[in-house]
Amino acid sequence: MNLILLFEEDFIAADTIRLTGRRLRHINEIHRAQTGDILTVGQLGGKIGAGEITTITKSSLEMHVELQSESPAPLPVTLVLALPRPRVLNRTLIAATSMGVKKIYLLHTNRVEKSFWHSPVLNEEKLKHSLILGLEQAKDTLLPDVYLRKRFRPFVEDELPLIAQNTRKLVAHPEISVASSDAEEIATTLIVGPEGGLIPYEIEKLSAIGFAGISLGQRILRVETAVPVLLARLFRKE
Amino acid sequence: MNLILLFEEDFIAADTIRLTGRRLRHINEIHRAQTGDILTVGQLGGKIGAGEITTITKSSLEMHVELQSESPAPLPVTLVLALPRPRVLNRTLIAATSMGVKKIYLLHTNRVEKSFWHSPVLNEEKLKHSLILGLEQAKDTLLPDVYLRKRFRPFVEDELPLIAQNTRKLVAHPEISVASSDAEEIATTLIVGPEGGLIPYEIEKLSAIGFAGISLGQRILRVETAVPVLLARLFRKE
Repeated sequence: MNLILLFEEDFIAADTIRLTGRRLRHINEIHRAQTGDILTVGQLGGKIGAGEITTITKSSLEMHVELQSESPAPLPVTLVLALPRPRVLNRTLIAATSMGVKKIYLLHTNRVEKSFWHSPVLNEEKLKHSLILGLEQAKDTLLPDVYLRKRFRPFVEDELPLIAQNTRKLVAHPEISVASSDAEEIATTLIVGPEGGLIPYEIEKLSAIGFAGISLGQRILRVETAVPVLLARLFRKE
Repeated sequence: MNLILLFEEDFIAADTIRLTGRRLRHINEIHRAQTGDILTVGQLGGKIGAGEITTITKSSLEMHVELQSESPAPLPVTLVLALPRPRVLNRTLIAATSMGVKKIYLLHTNRVEKSFWHSPVLNEEKLKHSLILGLEQAKDTLLPDVYLRKRFRPFVEDELPLIAQNTRKLVAHPEISVASSDAEEIATTLIVGPEGGLIPYEIEKLSAIGFAGISLGQRILRVETAVPVLLARLFRKE
């Protein structure tokens, strides 16, 4: 937790907040903070700044906050991810959020196990929790939007062409023509297949609407590793 | 498990192996393999090839194997990692191994919690298990070497200059001069600090023996994400 994320309900005055629960425990146990300490805080969807602890006990904490900085720039990417197994999903969402992804589609494809769609990690609160962990990690405040798409074909035929319009269209699949991957700040739609890969029909459909392949090389990486690696190669910034 | 890793004791003849335990369970439950199926196999430290299942039951499996391909090229990097907390260590070792890192030093620095050194994940068998998961993921057979270094100063003064000799010397720390990060296949020694960062004394010591900074940008990433991102930027291959 490199930033304490603040929600509307935390504010007891315009510049004063009160925390309980997970964040308070973290501040007590990991930061071991005391009255007078200053922590990095940010308001969900808003600005970043400093919070000075005015009172802290085991059950509650109050801070005087000043929020004046913008949150870090997002990555200009839409990530379309074949729904991975639940534990991998959590870690991938945290990693993608921490790297600045703001728009994530979770998609069904032929080799996604149907049971994954019944996992409790997909309920709204659980998803939000992973995203919040990613924001807190990267000192960001802007929650990504996550959309669930359980049918491949209507998504690819009706929605994806609009989503991907005027963006670099890439699918992490070694078997279609490889696009140049010059690292530049250009809007991109990136599709990452499931563990077992996309099937030829799926590749054809994506190819037909202009998606080109991007390779990770000879090695097969876990989704939670592949996504950061792809983002790092596509958006190189110093 | 994209490759079934074979150990010397699995061979019951020059071209025949027998499996039990974890790998057998995986082949039964995930691959749902049957007699006649062909799986990718590789011998620890050796070659990669195909294994044809000759018999399979719940308790044992035999394969006829032919090993003729080389394992994928390693990354020309030595990774020096401030010892992260145990769960993060596991995931980072798997990710780094899957990306082809073959030499890993786990180092104590000022902000590494001393208790991490007492974790059972550091025993030889547990470490090896994480490395094997990384190899199986990336269809590799060459086990990385992992070295534990519990004292920062003797390591940096006596060992690191030799380790890093004739390599690009980089430390993932934003506050020292930033090196160019042209992605090239040049031998590199990469140091990644602990969650709380390296302290000024440590940075000075590293700077003195030629290490330059490499930045991850404004966002702070988890170690398990930062390592793949750094490797992806340093060694870009299509």
